[in-house]
Amino acid sequence: MKNIKFRFFMPVEILMADEGQLDLSDEIGGDSAVIVTDPFLYESGQALTLGKSITAARVNYFHHIEPNPSTDTVDACKAAIEAAGASAVIGFGGGSCLDTAKAAACMAGSDKRFVECLEGGKEIPDRRLRLILIPTTAGTGSEVTNVGVYTSSETGAKIPLVRPDFYGDMAVLYPEATYTMPPAVTANTGMDAFCHAIEAYWNKNSQPFCDACALEALKLIKDNLLTAYYTGEDKEARKNMCIASLLAGAAFSQTRTTGPHALSYPLTANYHVAHGVGCALSLPAFIRLSTQKEEAKMVRLAKELGYESVNSLADGVEELLGNLHMPTRLRDIGAEEKDLKGIAKEAMNYYPQLALTPAVITEESLLCLLQSIY
Amino acid sequence: MKNIKFRFFMPVEILMADEGQLDLSDEIGGDSAVIVTDPFLYESGQALTLGKSITAARVNYFHHIEPNPSTDTVDACKAAIEAAGASAVIGFGGGSCLDTAKAAACMAGSDKRFVECLEGGKEIPDRRLRLILIPTTAGTGSEVTNVGVYTSSETGAKIPLVRPDFYGDMAVLYPEATYTMPPAVTANTGMDAFCHAIEAYWNKNSQPFCDACALEALKLIKDNLLTAYYTGEDKEARKNMCIASLLAGAAFSQTRTTGPHALSYPLTANYHVAHGVGCALSLPAFIRLSTQKEEAKMVRLAKELGYESVNSLADGVEELLGNLHMPTRLRDIGAEEKDLKGIAKEAMNYYPQLALTPAVITEESLLCLLQSIY
Repeated sequence: MKNIKFRFFMPVEILMADEGQLDLSDEIGGDSAVIVTDPFLYESGQALTLGKSITAARVNYFHHIEPNPSTDTVDACKAAIEAAGASAVIGFGGGSCLDTAKAAACMAGSDKRFVECLEGGKEIPDRRLRLILIPTTAGTGSEVTNVGVYTSSETGAKIPLVRPDFYGDMAVLYPEATYTMPPAVTANTGMDAFCHAIEAYWNKNSQPFCDACALEALKLIKDNLLTAYYTGEDKEARKNMCIASLLAGAAFSQTRTTGPHALSYPLTANYHVAHGVGCALSLPAFIRLSTQKEEAKMVRLAKELGYESVNSLADGVEELLGNLHMPTRLRDIGAEEKDLKGIAKEAMNYYPQLALTPAVITEESLLCLLQSIY
Repeated sequence: MKNIKFRFFMPVEILMADEGQLDLSDEIGGDSAVIVTDPFLYESGQALTLGKSITAARVNYFHHIEPNPSTDTVDACKAAIEAAGASAVIGFGGGSCLDTAKAAACMAGSDKRFVECLEGGKEIPDRRLRLILIPTTAGTGSEVTNVGVYTSSETGAKIPLVRPDFYGDMAVLYPEATYTMPPAVTANTGMDAFCHAIEAYWNKNSQPFCDACALEALKLIKDNLLTAYYTGEDKEARKNMCIASLLAGAAFSQTRTTGPHALSYPLTANYHVAHGVGCALSLPAFIRLSTQKEEAKMVRLAKELGYESVNSLADGVEELLGNLHMPTRLRDIGAEEKDLKGIAKEAMNYYPQLALTPAVITEESLLCLLQSIY
């Protein structure tokens, strides 16, 4: 043991609402709200159902959120919030909707363009509107983190932003909102949560509260993800995946992430796979590597999850990915052997969280790892 | 599932310090500190060793803390803090030392007597001094709760006090400070932590963060308490018990306690047993009862702890108490059969947390429970 100092800072109030019981009327803090969502959730009527349940306020909708939301989308969302005179912004959807709601809630009332703040060094205003975050996937953890990721409309770069007021005032876990999530999204967001949890657990910044949350999240995912994938209407599995995502999100928001997330950035940028796919692909290899510096902890984790050894845990995760029809080889997502060196270099250059991985990480060791999963 | 709303509020910064590595020089926030401790820790030199490690500040000692600290002791401690012109108060010891440090740190600078505030309706001043809490037992959780318990010097009543500024600025987990804890104290404080964790887990206010912390705490206690009891010098066991106490304390500080703690008040008051003894005595009986309203959760807990059923978990806890040489029958602590009705009545009248127990609790059902463990 070395001396460590830590807090467990989770300022978001959580509302867990049972099927048919979601009522935010008392949570708006004013008479007008804007629901920030994507075209699918709007056209399917899910966002409207949510809006109609808020009887105490006028509700408007901004339903143009795309995957990897651009800074221009944040500006358009901000304009809609201003036009509605909203006192509350409700993010409803996957990570993109929640991230846009976070940024637009801060920018409302400002005459700056968001890209000027994100890239041009202008200051982002402090958030004055109430922010409520309702995930419809179970995995990003965005509902309890202070992070948003945006694509610059100027340069196309994907830029993460961390701010204290990106923690929402309230996160709503409403498992019913995840019932219609397609299997592929269930799989890749679920494995994103798995990565959040295990990367918090083996992290060099790990600490007892995060370990406890991560262990519980990993068990819930192991016991529920396949059911949620194959039997999307299984309410218990959906609820448990929402709880797992919450716990994993809170855990990694204290520790930050490690290797699998660091590698996901070049993989999603170059091969256009979903974030969870990019994270999970290298997960079994990083699990094998993690015994380098955290053997005792990882042996305990393997046992807690019902495996004999850390290697069998890695095999088990690979099997799980297979059962979720997720790729386990770089060639499966279109990478060529000659790309590997560049991926290793890019990850080393841009992702400082690599250093939080419990193994010796150099460009050479990373290349070795990539070759082992090519 | 019903709709629930919760936070996980744990504002205390935690410092986990390795053997021989405790150095609080940067943590005092001024040039003078008072260490609040008990006669044993002072005379054994442990408090002095701690004080000498604080090279950047003058250190004074108040070493007159008795079990169940009185309001007069708080006043005397306050006077010592004022005389030293201290900027920081360091509670070092068991729950009594930590609780006294909390109250005296608030009262410093005030001319009121503490008993006037606790019983006479006068307002307790907001704390202006830095408060650092270092437990030398592993169980009370006082280092991460906003609660203190005091014995009125006027009426003799034991009065709990809950205040936001009773959360310390920093809690220090320094397992080395627990190495010399006698076996009986190891046992009863360890079982106090077990009760905190399980009472948070089955609590009507339970929520995912508390469940995760409680599960981890219960596992750590199951795997380490007997070792800490029989082999007090086992460093790993001592460290794990400190972590368990931390997690259990944070968990119950969100949910409050239930039946075993409620019953402990009449038991400790009437039969002068240690707090942990008073809590643990009824624990097996409450475990058997808990399936009334939380069967699925309790079945899962039993399995996680390696038992076939909730009843075998209750048997296992009874066996553990036996191995710790702790009483499992009311007659063992001097209760007579004719007392039981009065104990049930007292608990019903004074302890609202009884209602958080996952079972139907009436004066009759409580009497039945008491008879079953007489």
